Amino acid sequence: MKIVNIVVNLIEYHQLNETFVLLLKRTNGPYKNQWALPGGKVEFGERLSEAIIRETKEETGILELKNLNLFLIVNEVVSLNNTRHDHFLVNFFSSTVDNNLVESSTEGELRWFTFENLPKKLVPSDRKAIELWFKSSKSKSIEFRECDLELVSLDQQGESVDLKLKNWMSEI
Amino acid sequence: MKIVNIVVNLIEYHQLNETFVLLLKRTNGPYKNQWALPGGKVEFGERLSEAIIRETKEETGILELKNLNLFLIVNEVVSLNNTRHDHFLVNFFSSTVDNNLVESSTEGELRWFTFENLPKKLVPSDRKAIELWFKSSKSKSIEFRECDLELVSLDQQGESVDLKLKNWMSEI
Repeated sequence: MKIVNIVVNLIEYHQLNETFVLLLKRTNGPYKNQWALPGGKVEFGERLSEAIIRETKEETGILELKNLNLFLIVNEVVSLNNTRHDHFLVNFFSSTVDNNLVESSTEGELRWFTFENLPKKLVPSDRKAIELWFKSSKSKSIEFRECDLELVSLDQQGESVDLKLKNWMSEI
Repeated sequence: MKIVNIVVNLIEYHQLNETFVLLLKRTNGPYKNQWALPGGKVEFGERLSEAIIRETKEETGILELKNLNLFLIVNEVVSLNNTRHDHFLVNFFSSTVDNNLVESSTEGELRWFTFENLPKKLVPSDRKAIELWFKSSKSKSIEFRECDLELVSLDQQGESVDLKLKNWMSEI
């Protein structure tokens, strides 16, 4: 069991007076069947900026990101029946795109959502990150949070199908 | 080869008009025989604040830290002959103590240094972090940096004895 370093991308698209965020409905675990921000594992020897560009391209087909910015780092500990099951260190980037063209991959369906209409089945820490981004007036400073999650149900492969936020600490 | 998540502690002690920083001369690799900030690996399932308190206690005997604050995160890629050799994600905390009592462990000798008299053989990214801390007026905001290092010489166990800073990016 090891700590997994992750990058995720909160990609914004502006049209008229509305702002849309791109989410992916995960077809693979963990968090299978949940909507989530696009992203994935940082590879050995990679810069975080390289990882986020690679993962964004792989999962969305987007090649050109503007205003790429690291705004939040979350230390996520996921438990199952009081046993520590997963540990992710998640680096949340924000970015903007000039058009809403995307290419779905085998990772899952892609869809644009407004902040007011986020899906119900959304990875809890991604929801918190989106809220923080929109409520913090999209500040340039980096925030850090500790986050505890609990697995509520698993599929036959032992991957999370549903998970619940237990604790989101605003200060360490 | 995997990414190793690290916590380190910049511990300050104030006496009269001087500020001292605690450094440890590492007896074990990597960075053997280099002075470094005390710290170590984050364990699976640990909060970063738990990890920094545990590592500080193990390496210095210090039990009571005041003003504990995360101020810098560095993605460190260490190369040897253009091959990626180590990858550390280092979380730099700052803290203060009320007295200068410490207990050396098998990890290495401990010594207090002023900012003006830091040792020559100091892990390069730790030196950068100390400079950032003192020059940024000890700001509460978190900074992020990418850092490339090169191994200059290794001991018989293949651990770094000396290393050189190749690249310290102020913006990602």
